[in-house]
Amino acid sequence: MAYPQKSFSKTSFPESSFVSRRRQVVYDNTLLYQLNVLKTTGRYDAFKLKWHSSYNDKPDVWPVPNHLFWDSDVAKWIEGACYFLQWKENSEIDAAVRELVDMIRSAQQPDGYLNIHFTVVEPEKRFTNLRDLHELYNAGHLIEAALAHNEHYQNDLLLEPILNYIDLLCKTFGPEPQQKHGYPGHPEIELALLRLYEKTKTPEHLALARYFIEERGNPTGQDGKHYYDVEGEARGDRENERPVYWPANRSYWYQQAHKPIIEQETIEGHSVRAMYLLTAAADLVRLEATNSKPMKDALERLWSNMTDRKMYLTGGIGSQKQWEGFGIDYFLPSSTDEGGCYAETCAAIGVMMLAERLLQLDLDGKYGDIMELCFYNAVMTGMSATGKQFTYVNQLASSDTDLSKRAEWFTCACCPPNVTRLLGYIGGYLWNYDVRDEKSVQINVHMFSSATLSIPVSGNALELEQESNWPWEGKVKFSLRNTSNVWTTIKVRIPSWAETWEITPKLTNPQLEKGYLTIPADWVNSNPSFELNIPLKPRFISPHPYTNQDIVALARGPLVYCVEDFDNAWVEDHFKSLVLDPSSIVDETQVSEKELGEPYVALTVQGVPYFLDVDRNKAQRGPFGSVAYKQTKVIESLRFIPYALRDNRGGKGHMRLGIRRKH
Amino acid sequence: MAYPQKSFSKTSFPESSFVSRRRQVVYDNTLLYQLNVLKTTGRYDAFKLKWHSSYNDKPDVWPVPNHLFWDSDVAKWIEGACYFLQWKENSEIDAAVRELVDMIRSAQQPDGYLNIHFTVVEPEKRFTNLRDLHELYNAGHLIEAALAHNEHYQNDLLLEPILNYIDLLCKTFGPEPQQKHGYPGHPEIELALLRLYEKTKTPEHLALARYFIEERGNPTGQDGKHYYDVEGEARGDRENERPVYWPANRSYWYQQAHKPIIEQETIEGHSVRAMYLLTAAADLVRLEATNSKPMKDALERLWSNMTDRKMYLTGGIGSQKQWEGFGIDYFLPSSTDEGGCYAETCAAIGVMMLAERLLQLDLDGKYGDIMELCFYNAVMTGMSATGKQFTYVNQLASSDTDLSKRAEWFTCACCPPNVTRLLGYIGGYLWNYDVRDEKSVQINVHMFSSATLSIPVSGNALELEQESNWPWEGKVKFSLRNTSNVWTTIKVRIPSWAETWEITPKLTNPQLEKGYLTIPADWVNSNPSFELNIPLKPRFISPHPYTNQDIVALARGPLVYCVEDFDNAWVEDHFKSLVLDPSSIVDETQVSEKELGEPYVALTVQGVPYFLDVDRNKAQRGPFGSVAYKQTKVIESLRFIPYALRDNRGGKGHMRLGIRRKH
Repeated sequence: MAYPQKSFSKTSFPESSFVSRRRQVVYDNTLLYQLNVLKTTGRYDAFKLKWHSSYNDKPDVWPVPNHLFWDSDVAKWIEGACYFLQWKENSEIDAAVRELVDMIRSAQQPDGYLNIHFTVVEPEKRFTNLRDLHELYNAGHLIEAALAHNEHYQNDLLLEPILNYIDLLCKTFGPEPQQKHGYPGHPEIELALLRLYEKTKTPEHLALARYFIEERGNPTGQDGKHYYDVEGEARGDRENERPVYWPANRSYWYQQAHKPIIEQETIEGHSVRAMYLLTAAADLVRLEATNSKPMKDALERLWSNMTDRKMYLTGGIGSQKQWEGFGIDYFLPSSTDEGGCYAETCAAIGVMMLAERLLQLDLDGKYGDIMELCFYNAVMTGMSATGKQFTYVNQLASSDTDLSKRAEWFTCACCPPNVTRLLGYIGGYLWNYDVRDEKSVQINVHMFSSATLSIPVSGNALELEQESNWPWEGKVKFSLRNTSNVWTTIKVRIPSWAETWEITPKLTNPQLEKGYLTIPADWVNSNPSFELNIPLKPRFISPHPYTNQDIVALARGPLVYCVEDFDNAWVEDHFKSLVLDPSSIVDETQVSEKELGEPYVALTVQGVPYFLDVDRNKAQRGPFGSVAYKQTKVIESLRFIPYALRDNRGGKGHMRLGIRRKH
Repeated sequence: MAYPQKSFSKTSFPESSFVSRRRQVVYDNTLLYQLNVLKTTGRYDAFKLKWHSSYNDKPDVWPVPNHLFWDSDVAKWIEGACYFLQWKENSEIDAAVRELVDMIRSAQQPDGYLNIHFTVVEPEKRFTNLRDLHELYNAGHLIEAALAHNEHYQNDLLLEPILNYIDLLCKTFGPEPQQKHGYPGHPEIELALLRLYEKTKTPEHLALARYFIEERGNPTGQDGKHYYDVEGEARGDRENERPVYWPANRSYWYQQAHKPIIEQETIEGHSVRAMYLLTAAADLVRLEATNSKPMKDALERLWSNMTDRKMYLTGGIGSQKQWEGFGIDYFLPSSTDEGGCYAETCAAIGVMMLAERLLQLDLDGKYGDIMELCFYNAVMTGMSATGKQFTYVNQLASSDTDLSKRAEWFTCACCPPNVTRLLGYIGGYLWNYDVRDEKSVQINVHMFSSATLSIPVSGNALELEQESNWPWEGKVKFSLRNTSNVWTTIKVRIPSWAETWEITPKLTNPQLEKGYLTIPADWVNSNPSFELNIPLKPRFISPHPYTNQDIVALARGPLVYCVEDFDNAWVEDHFKSLVLDPSSIVDETQVSEKELGEPYVALTVQGVPYFLDVDRNKAQRGPFGSVAYKQTKVIESLRFIPYALRDNRGGKGHMRLGIRRKH
């Protein structure tokens, strides 16, 4: 097994699939679009360590300066760019990466320190606010950029300064009395250090990652107190002076630092931080198989809590805007005007990261299902078909204050480059494999597309190809090219939503365990080409009744659908009064629309739809009365489009995914 | 028309009615119980201005010292005690009132100032934090106590020092350059000043009340800025140092000071503050009939927003714990574990206050309906049958963290004495009247009970008696004793929930306007005894569908019912998985239980109840699947009890009012 950021290079995509079309858009448009934004906003030149006028701006989110993430914006772009350059060269992107790397090298301080804000703006405040200021988070993204850069350029131009910086961090943080017993408020460096350790095998890199993970939430870590308390006192913070994102004083659960990870019973706080932290924790469990049971138990517990009680129908997580994160169990409103819905794009990318790591620990379809759900819905809805517009928040319904509209950029621009880099290494999510010795291989197929995995075994390339028009069609043709006669077992995920499935030629006595179908090596030997067929039919889905969301949504395969005003122009209330009968007849239509970049399957619910008779319900003065419905004859049907494809064709931004259920 | 705090003395109650039994409990138990609490906690002696050890305590709710309300705790008890002493003398209560008044007189400072905290603890901080510290709120309650005291004792022993204090306030606050352009964070003094003005006719009292009401929310009131900004800067507050109850900086909507009242479109913030403020605004509209249209429009707009979109089935208001107040439109979860439910007892008392004032402006049953709904549910549930236990928060369902249990007292003890004083002057809510000249009277009957209203007209007492076992029976017998042949029109509220009603003898051509039935004077003249009969039948009620609360509750007459574990001992999940079919057959049972102090009507839903099959729904992993039900044969029926009577018989504290609806 390996990190998808590395293994992705073994996967190639032909030109016509959902995944390859999205990758092409990023290569053609997004990377250069984002490079241009980096340049015009000042980010590109920031490692020159000159003053930028925006450094005077008041923070939008106190106490976090708006430019605090600039290091990571650059790093994530470099990382994504290097993944794509491995696929296809591009001289403009290549030149930019080289120039940025030069600037980063020149920004390093004599002692190894490397951070824009704490060199240019507040050099005296280095490592004085790990809790709120993204100093170590930025370091983590620099590590990830350096690893991607090293892989593509096969030189140490970026890795070298980063290793120097990490040396400084290894000296600064740790359990020794003279070291700071702190850890970052926004996890990221943990998972980056573990990836770095895979490359360097330097024990200090592993040790620092382990320290950050295990020390987190220690109530008596520094001078008998919580590290963040000691740090705050040293800064002269007042007791009731609290960050914008904290509803109450000492809301350390926001940072998942309210208690050690292994003691956490429920998933809390900022959802991206939680996902990055648990991804690192899962990597640590994999690396340190012994003594890791409490951490593995915590991972399973927190995963279950999240997916059973705190995840939207789209795979999105986080309903609370103030802390960009999780609410209480089953608190999953659809929109701002119903109590909140956040579902940040980065958070869903984080769920995919965690799911992929958990699949390496335990091949269970429950992880694969969620990984695919997130990719096709909560993540892919984050970028327009043009690759030039993005979302940060992904609500399940629009409202007057939060229309279903993408933006061109964000002050805190974490999401756009995160989508870029994900699509850069998406091949690593499709499948993973284990070469047991030079004679046997196991390939686990998690997601479907048209793609070829090429594994070097015994000096030859073992190739597994899948051909599919997934997610639009449910037929997947597998072909194994096995010139060295390697004993190849293939495990294929059967999605839990699949009502039926079929393997051709017929597999006698099929073994389906925890959502993965085993295709035995001997069978593959005699059937190197076989076909999986999962009929894709529209189905109604709904959340747990304890969510108090009495809604139904339409899904087909891994895609969840929504209604938009573009197709249903009569809407004036964000479909809030629309009701849907889950016994309705649903038709499929193949659609080609220029704006969407690819043909798709639209769904149409036939029949005159019903609406809540809101006036009549209002006349009964809220507290009393019962629900009344009405119909409007001019509307003859409801048209649905995949949520991932919303807001690509104009319109006024009215959209809804979960429709009130008609009883 | 007059204030109910004054007019109540015209109403007498016979011994056996719901209202009179509650009043008897307060007279027998609550007043002395609360007096004892005042003594043991230090409140009683606090006006001696000695240091109390608790003054060293850290605030539970920064920046509000825990003892900051002690002035008002004492004042509200005096006020309530004086109402009850007008009914029946009691030497112990009388002696305590006299001693407290002596202490309050002795606490007054040479310049008229009168406040415990700002005399003993922080004398240098007088009037430096109107926003958070309840200095003027306490002054308001002292005014109300003084008025009640004056009415009962017919002397100025308490009124005198209070008038001196008000003189100081009139000098300190106002529009003149040398005056502070501030107003209290917690309204109360506004309504008290208007009541005071009714007695004193001193123009400065009216002017100060008007100033506090109209200046509120002025964005440029002090030195071109918001008063609270200027005050905060003068204190040296830091920008991000914010009170515990503020989710964000400058949450002035918490104090209804985000904009002038007449510009407010929706009801926001702390619910008690909102009700006290609008009650005063309604009084101001009544007093100043000209130029008051914008304020009257605001009152109607905010009332509609509250009752249509932000009120629970019980009449409770406020779903948000952090600011003890309103959420967004239609955000009305039942309990902590579903997103919050506050419904503070004092807030529902405030709704009754506001409703009563609005009825004086506009005789509309929509106000009377809500006044009665609040009284019989959200307010009366606030006190135990013994009169010695109280609630602050009144959720519609219990949860493991918030059981359905009353407490003996609170650090912030606003609610218990508020119930006491309300029951002291409840007679003033039953009806109001208008003596047009010495020959014609209009009596408006808002609520039913056994009670006699005695109005002096033309030197004789005009008496209207109602005899009823309301809320248990729907028959109300009216008798007018009219020795002076005063032309008496009676308007009787017909509750909006009444399916049918009947007047005997038959009223030909009955006129029902905005929920009030006119019994014309000539008809009353020939029918001085008549009977109103409103059949009370169990009915199912439900909130507006936009609340996303797919629940039904049982009601009968003005009472809303709940299920408790005492009657349904099998419950283990706070009835969260219970579902209820609103077409079920419901039986009534007359019940007498010693703990409840009075016979009541219980309701029983016949048939084996259904439950959500939670395990099966969970197995489908939250986001997917549809609702499954199950039955448990050992449970044969569901027993309901009025919400007002919950938690009087022991049990483990599992309770629910709105039951998930079975489809």
